[in-house]
Amino acid sequence: MKRMSCIFRKRPWIVSCLLCCFCILVQAQPPRGPLVISPEVHPDRSVTFRYLAPQARQVKLSTQFEKAAVPLTKNEQGIWSVTVGPVKPDIYPYSFQVDGVTVMDPANVAFFPNERFKASLVDIPGETPLIHALKEVPHGTITYEYYPSTAGTTGSLVVYTPPGYDQKSSQKYPVYYLISGTTDTEETFFKVGRTNLILDNLLAEGKAKPMIIVMPYGNVAAREAEQKGGPKPADPTVRDDADAVNRANAFGDDLTRHIIPYIDKNYRTLPNRENRAIGGFSRGGGQTLRAAFGHLDTFAWVCAYSSYLSPQEMERSYPAITRNPAQTNQQLKLLWVSVGSEDFLYKGTLEFMEYLKSKNVQFKSRITDGGHTWMNVKAYVAETVPLLFQ
Amino acid sequence: MKRMSCIFRKRPWIVSCLLCCFCILVQAQPPRGPLVISPEVHPDRSVTFRYLAPQARQVKLSTQFEKAAVPLTKNEQGIWSVTVGPVKPDIYPYSFQVDGVTVMDPANVAFFPNERFKASLVDIPGETPLIHALKEVPHGTITYEYYPSTAGTTGSLVVYTPPGYDQKSSQKYPVYYLISGTTDTEETFFKVGRTNLILDNLLAEGKAKPMIIVMPYGNVAAREAEQKGGPKPADPTVRDDADAVNRANAFGDDLTRHIIPYIDKNYRTLPNRENRAIGGFSRGGGQTLRAAFGHLDTFAWVCAYSSYLSPQEMERSYPAITRNPAQTNQQLKLLWVSVGSEDFLYKGTLEFMEYLKSKNVQFKSRITDGGHTWMNVKAYVAETVPLLFQ
Repeated sequence: MKRMSCIFRKRPWIVSCLLCCFCILVQAQPPRGPLVISPEVHPDRSVTFRYLAPQARQVKLSTQFEKAAVPLTKNEQGIWSVTVGPVKPDIYPYSFQVDGVTVMDPANVAFFPNERFKASLVDIPGETPLIHALKEVPHGTITYEYYPSTAGTTGSLVVYTPPGYDQKSSQKYPVYYLISGTTDTEETFFKVGRTNLILDNLLAEGKAKPMIIVMPYGNVAAREAEQKGGPKPADPTVRDDADAVNRANAFGDDLTRHIIPYIDKNYRTLPNRENRAIGGFSRGGGQTLRAAFGHLDTFAWVCAYSSYLSPQEMERSYPAITRNPAQTNQQLKLLWVSVGSEDFLYKGTLEFMEYLKSKNVQFKSRITDGGHTWMNVKAYVAETVPLLFQ
Repeated sequence: MKRMSCIFRKRPWIVSCLLCCFCILVQAQPPRGPLVISPEVHPDRSVTFRYLAPQARQVKLSTQFEKAAVPLTKNEQGIWSVTVGPVKPDIYPYSFQVDGVTVMDPANVAFFPNERFKASLVDIPGETPLIHALKEVPHGTITYEYYPSTAGTTGSLVVYTPPGYDQKSSQKYPVYYLISGTTDTEETFFKVGRTNLILDNLLAEGKAKPMIIVMPYGNVAAREAEQKGGPKPADPTVRDDADAVNRANAFGDDLTRHIIPYIDKNYRTLPNRENRAIGGFSRGGGQTLRAAFGHLDTFAWVCAYSSYLSPQEMERSYPAITRNPAQTNQQLKLLWVSVGSEDFLYKGTLEFMEYLKSKNVQFKSRITDGGHTWMNVKAYVAETVPLLFQ
């Protein structure tokens, strides 16, 4: 082992060897060689990605700011790298394709929590900090909670409380229930959506009402399978067949029968429909619309990010919504529907908007650039939160 | 694309195609093919690991319950699999080696937060639930906090509060500061160490005092580099050169000047040395010993998990500890030092124990089987927490 190729540069070789042993023991994998810095965001917003793989034949970068995978080149240490950009400021998922194998960036702590794929996150800061940036403002807190859920299982929640929540012991708050997409987990709105920082910043600018945000795990069937045994079902984004509706209703039941009572018991909430909003992305948006249209007595504010229900399902399952639009419009303080023009759900979402229009159900809509991405989700959250509870 | 090879089985092909588009858009990577369940823990505690890679030439499993990597075999769908065990109940890190490339298990949500490597976690339950199992007992909460830290940076903390903390608004609690190892993050004691569940279970059994546990990020230099620019230094496990001591002191400063005041201000603590413990694993254990021996006025309970200081550093930096052992023994309510017999720090830790003994400094010690692993850390936490604040 050459001194310069060991993990901690400029250390005596004996320390390096010890540390390589440490790597082997802790990771049950070979020592990693030189210390790799990745990603490195440069002042001009170009980014260098690096990946150590002396034996690999090909390494590519897959990221949502490039249309196609970008090849990396290898140096004499076996470190592959590429510099791309300048990149438009935002937070992007990315991964490496190493001889066709998809891997997270081992050198990067920031990750995308998901049931099915593993991606890292790169944060390109703006010249003025973006709405999701970590700024020197008062910070709320993120809390991980367990709650008694369906079928005797224990559910998990991530909860945002605004700055000052612990100090203002008599103040009660409205609650926004926020559900992430297919294969996402209860952590995704926190770790990828940076919902806590968006709220901190909106609140610091006086642009939003202080609120609690509750982020549940939408895949009830998967949790039951994990804790009770049995098959783990996939839970696709858009379907209006009986199975999908059953699953959406299973989540709606969990929400109304377990999650909301748990939150109302354990947090200082304003426990009524006027102070309860629901929103979600992708599958979570479908679950949002189904839960809201099925429980107008529970929610008055509704945000569907990159999602819709089909006119067929609306007619079949929620005829009350369109039967008396004046009443619906009076009950719903906000119905917000958004989609990106490159989203694969674009057409369905437009059809949903047309349907609502044809039935005189009022809604606000937002059509943006981009696709079915968490860059868009962050923008939608930042745009809708200021509208809630006003 | 064949219908049966698409991601969501038994769905009409048009839905499958849409979902493959979804995969491409969201992940910027190719569709994944059949739904893979991994890991699957069987009733006899054998485990099947699966990984989808039709093009791979070789896939191996690396895990801390096997001495060497275990080869997987491929089926006609391109899914590699292997069944191993029965495995001794515990939580183990593992990863796949795909043509020599280390990857997390894409089908598994449970991950090992770390600066440098990416591993998944497999949980083998015991016939009677282990001390870290999710049980139907009252649960405390985990909170992610930001605090104003060194050099104008914003630090991050994970905080455990015991069940009932929010209800018993007049009760004050002792605090255990718990620091994770080299390349770990503030999440590792939560996500890998399951410290919250261990506490929930010990408390439910009446075996521990209710306490707050504060889990900081030990790599102050890395955070400063990330937020302020500059090189990101590695921070190795065991060194007593000036650089390592400076870094340990930087963390100790952050702890005593920023973290403890922040916690004492924002949580209902008993803010005195008798109600303050400090412990850590590996590098965090070294930081623990340095912080404690440098601040006996701040901490009265000290736990070093798989870590030590050299006699040379003890003599040079903490002569007061051994100069008057009777006073040290009176001040330290607990000094606990542990190590596994296969740990690469075994010899150094034994030397540390011998040194303390020779100087008549009292301590409790625990030598276990196993190596420098989080299986041992969980056992050490479960053994020491009942000793604290009693």
